[in-house]
Amino acid sequence: MSAVAWEAGKPLSVEEIEVAPPQKNEVRVKIHFTSLCHTDVYFWEAKGQNPLFPRILGHEAGGVVESVGKGVIDVQPGDHVLPIFTGECKECPHCLSEASNMCDLLRINTERGGMLHDGHTRFSKDGKPIYHFLGTSTFSKYTVVHVGQVAKINPEAPLDKVCVLSCEMSTGFGATVNVAKPKKGGFVAVFGLGAVGLAAAEGARVCEASRIIAKKFGCTEFVNPKDHNKPVQEVIAEMTGGGVDCSIECTGSTQAMVSAFECVHDGWGVAVLVGVPSRDDSFKTHPIHFLNERTLRGTFFGNYKPRSDIPGVVEKYMKKELELDKFITHSVPLLDINKAFEYMLRGEGLRCMIRMDASGTTWINSTTLFYLPFTLYVE
Amino acid sequence: MSAVAWEAGKPLSVEEIEVAPPQKNEVRVKIHFTSLCHTDVYFWEAKGQNPLFPRILGHEAGGVVESVGKGVIDVQPGDHVLPIFTGECKECPHCLSEASNMCDLLRINTERGGMLHDGHTRFSKDGKPIYHFLGTSTFSKYTVVHVGQVAKINPEAPLDKVCVLSCEMSTGFGATVNVAKPKKGGFVAVFGLGAVGLAAAEGARVCEASRIIAKKFGCTEFVNPKDHNKPVQEVIAEMTGGGVDCSIECTGSTQAMVSAFECVHDGWGVAVLVGVPSRDDSFKTHPIHFLNERTLRGTFFGNYKPRSDIPGVVEKYMKKELELDKFITHSVPLLDINKAFEYMLRGEGLRCMIRMDASGTTWINSTTLFYLPFTLYVE
Ligand SMILES: [Zn+2]
Ligand SMILES: [Zn+2]
Ligand SMILES: [Zn+2]
Ligand SMILES: [Zn+2]
Repeated sequence: MSAVAWEAGKPLSVEEIEVAPPQKNEVRVKIHFTSLCHTDVYFWEAKGQNPLFPRILGHEAGGVVESVGKGVIDVQPGDHVLPIFTGECKECPHCLSEASNMCDLLRINTERGGMLHDGHTRFSKDGKPIYHFLGTSTFSKYTVVHVGQVAKINPEAPLDKVCVLSCEMSTGFGATVNVAKPKKGGFVAVFGLGAVGLAAAEGARVCEASRIIAKKFGCTEFVNPKDHNKPVQEVIAEMTGGGVDCSIECTGSTQAMVSAFECVHDGWGVAVLVGVPSRDDSFKTHPIHFLNERTLRGTFFGNYKPRSDIPGVVEKYMKKELELDKFITHSVPLLDINKAFEYMLRGEGLRCMIRMDASGTTWINSTTLFYLPFTLYVE
Repeated sequence: MSAVAWEAGKPLSVEEIEVAPPQKNEVRVKIHFTSLCHTDVYFWEAKGQNPLFPRILGHEAGGVVESVGKGVIDVQPGDHVLPIFTGECKECPHCLSEASNMCDLLRINTERGGMLHDGHTRFSKDGKPIYHFLGTSTFSKYTVVHVGQVAKINPEAPLDKVCVLSCEMSTGFGATVNVAKPKKGGFVAVFGLGAVGLAAAEGARVCEASRIIAKKFGCTEFVNPKDHNKPVQEVIAEMTGGGVDCSIECTGSTQAMVSAFECVHDGWGVAVLVGVPSRDDSFKTHPIHFLNERTLRGTFFGNYKPRSDIPGVVEKYMKKELELDKFITHSVPLLDINKAFEYMLRGEGLRCMIRMDASGTTWINSTTLFYLPFTLYVE
């Protein structure tokens, strides 16, 4: 069973399709759980990019390897894995660099509809090809993924929880712990309180920052730019005696990027950009803000190398150092996958877990939902 | 004997003046050598700021403590010191931060004409006050400086060489070794080949970078933007297979800042801004350059804390790890100080050493001069 997007913006159709065996350097994965991310909705709506349909969306998931193609030695059938939308070949200059995770071979590619090996799809319906999405296509009971895009994880980890580490959770959490790196007791500002921003705030909580300006999940203060007549960076500077130690921008709005940069303290402040801007945006500031010893960095997937690092993040969850359950606000069986799209389009909740066992009920974690502040969230 | 700037843009007058004893937390220093920096010329011309005259300029120097005021315990008469234009109180949040050198109490102040303690000047001529400059005023046989602005150095260090570490040499060198931090074998681009840029290139040489794009002093390649029809960042990316590992911008032109940022490699590139822009400039780039894991940082005085770190840089010179002699292209006795201004205004050479012993000849190190490329230099 797979949820096929036959046309842009039309409800997915859950049906039987054919999933071909994995080819060279590919693995076929039985997906147990998958969750819905904004990027799925964005490409399903197909408003800003070349439409590619029919397509199987989905890129946050947890599953078990069913079979492997030629040349695959790192995983074997039975291994628990998270498919990841960006890969790690372990051989290119980026993979060999300690700093980068932007693999030359397997870097995220939103345009590609076939597999890297031969350009063909592994999905079909009555002989008609169905395109892949991000190399993951996890809205399917079986999918085929390049081995460089699967993270082999602890088999004891609950797949219905750690599956959210495939995308936004790791992106936000890593932006804080790997890039902004607040010190214990430091002041952190998070811009944007969707899943990425709240994951960034979770990172600040784990780093034991003393004052996290945002809300919920351990955040201690909340600023709504609409409550003030002056730029939010000035409000934050006044609240903190000169600025925060670090900020994480998770909205993609260039105005928020400028605020996030200018609200960090001179001498040592670090601002991290996570949110993806639109094509024509431009970031603009007076260079004196840099010369006063501020740092501006961007990150992609929280600077995590998918295969090398994500298994360690799963371990953090297992050791209860990192909380994930609170991010999962809804759950639906595969047959109700279109409900997940509705929740997201209405801005309800954070993550809707889609259960591949196809039957059962929908539930909503309303305690978590109740406190969610979306005020700063811009997308 | 002091060289007094009685009026903006008029030749300095070398004459006897009165230098009062040091007050609380001040030291009186006998200056042995002082060199001329662009900042002296800028404030002497007084084109862009409030003119403050009569004034004793000068802020790169080496001397010996003659007497100390109340409360001074860190230095005593006979100590060899470098007066520095920005200070270190050792108590404010910046001084207590490992990252910052932007002391709240003694941060560079170009407007102040008196001493911090009482606002008065320690210089006078027939009872008429003469203003201080940057708290250093080193164009004088004796000067009075806040103890937080003197770095106590190895008494064996030749003051006519290490005096250049008070300002631009440390600024450029520190930008590379403390902030950009190229790895051995890395690719470095330096924008601007004045004293700061060449000191940044010297930093790259010391870090054993393999390819320094600039020229002279160990630089291996030179790019003149005027030789190309496309943006220099694209030329550099082509020369290096995707960009340099780090770049250091030493001109202050916002166009060069953008090029310096965009020419670093995605995944790990670091660009460092050193050059001071004009008041209304703005830095503009597409945020995707950040999201592709580039870092942009600024630095002030090479991130060195003047009292804590500069003595160590002097030691580097003593151990021959860092070359300074090649930066000193001219030498004049105090009586000929106006010649130093002429050399700088004509763009000749890098550093003119002014000898306080007042007599003797002018010399030019023409071997060094011969190779100096000023093509990229913008100020
Ligand atoms: Zn996603
Ligand atoms: Zn790679
Ligand atoms: Zn201080
Ligand atoms: Zn200077």
